[in-house]
Amino acid sequence: MNEPTPSNEAIPSPRKKILVVSAHPEPRSLNASLTAFAVDELRAAGHDVQVSDLYAMKWKAAVDADDFPGHSADERLHVMAASERDTLADRLAPDIAAEQEKVRWADAVILQFPVWWFSAPAILKGWIDRVFTSGFAYGPEVPPPYSEGPLAGRRALLSVTLGARESSFSDRGIHGHLTDVLHPLQHGLFWFTGMAPLEPFAAYEANDLPADQFAAAKREYARRLHGLFTDEPVPFRSLVGGDYDHDMRLLPGVEAAGTTGLDLHVRPRG
Amino acid sequence: MNEPTPSNEAIPSPRKKILVVSAHPEPRSLNASLTAFAVDELRAAGHDVQVSDLYAMKWKAAVDADDFPGHSADERLHVMAASERDTLADRLAPDIAAEQEKVRWADAVILQFPVWWFSAPAILKGWIDRVFTSGFAYGPEVPPPYSEGPLAGRRALLSVTLGARESSFSDRGIHGHLTDVLHPLQHGLFWFTGMAPLEPFAAYEANDLPADQFAAAKREYARRLHGLFTDEPVPFRSLVGGDYDHDMRLLPGVEAAGTTGLDLHVRPRG
Repeated sequence: MNEPTPSNEAIPSPRKKILVVSAHPEPRSLNASLTAFAVDELRAAGHDVQVSDLYAMKWKAAVDADDFPGHSADERLHVMAASERDTLADRLAPDIAAEQEKVRWADAVILQFPVWWFSAPAILKGWIDRVFTSGFAYGPEVPPPYSEGPLAGRRALLSVTLGARESSFSDRGIHGHLTDVLHPLQHGLFWFTGMAPLEPFAAYEANDLPADQFAAAKREYARRLHGLFTDEPVPFRSLVGGDYDHDMRLLPGVEAAGTTGLDLHVRPRG
Repeated sequence: MNEPTPSNEAIPSPRKKILVVSAHPEPRSLNASLTAFAVDELRAAGHDVQVSDLYAMKWKAAVDADDFPGHSADERLHVMAASERDTLADRLAPDIAAEQEKVRWADAVILQFPVWWFSAPAILKGWIDRVFTSGFAYGPEVPPPYSEGPLAGRRALLSVTLGARESSFSDRGIHGHLTDVLHPLQHGLFWFTGMAPLEPFAAYEANDLPADQFAAAKREYARRLHGLFTDEPVPFRSLVGGDYDHDMRLLPGVEAAGTTGLDLHVRPRG
């Protein structure tokens, strides 16, 4: 599922390149269906698509010394330093380098996964931990984080399935508002590295979804896929836009009255 | 590092059982030092301690069909259903069963890890994904989530290291308030399963911590460890306490004026 679709410069400008990263152990799962659906929809719209199906790839999840061929066994492993050194020397483990190349290639990145324990499955967290190295996705050698980061110019979309009902992830829902629960990915991964995150697409009550609700979810997902390059991204604030002080704290009075919590970091809309 | 310390009923009541789960690839890391420090402090105080050093154990991170020996290869894998069935039938993969036994044994669970991409390293996420099965940590066969969950009666503490400065994780810090960033673990894992989470212990600027700051961090950590069973837990709201409606939404007007975001789910203090 990982062969690149050849690019074709003769096709007019709306043609884009999209990487779908999928993380479910069961090829007949709802998540696998949504991945296949996205691939079909995007290709039908004339786009190039690559898929990283992490379970099919037997993706190694845990960062360790083997990721950094420049690291010598008797040396203490400083993960960030080793990551930066081997990224800049272009000698990361081949599986990591291949995924970085896909991210570089892409105009948009879609992460498709079931929300387990209010975050990404371990295998996907391991794709993030291992692929987004210092020197590639952040760090002193690349542009600063939040909006201007090294992956700027790319769109990013989370497509998630959840067992719970939508109300329990609403703004007053007990699990926390989905926006807040997914903040480490939306703001911490996408926005931090410069990607422009769209509102997540979520399919609720996904453990036993009736056929008509699955059909409705696919229609809604199709709408989101068609807006991948035209929908308004979440208007997170820029680090360098004058909203933050030198200690990276939001300046007093920048926010709309009554705004608290993670919403502080979103510009008022409209 | 995983042998249980034998319990000794003759020692008076303050003696408790603590599981420390540690997730760093480098045995000479700050995280490994903090794990060793916690073990020494807790044992010196007369407690029993077990350590799950996930990298040393070569912990398998990704949930898959091998976790569920009752699953037949030609069957579609429904993770939650397979998890519940094999948990209740007492036939989970042995590495999972062994970790569940440690959690059951423990009066307190400490997770020691570097914050990578605003959450737990993949290997630790995989410990959570695989160990906290339906039927053990949640699900229809056990008490309801949030305060009364099946792991009630246990304390829980996150001990984390972060590369960033403390200001950037302050209430107006650009990364988000640390409390909000760690919500999936504090509220979504600990409180959901019934454990009483303490405020996290955090060591900032951890990539290059001078000796005097490390000494200060250890003094502060010692204070937190000594308060493991006496400090006030975060007063998250109970699902069954009358604060939520049947759709798991916080009832109108329950919160203090001006409270929004994830703070909605914390009872006003003092």
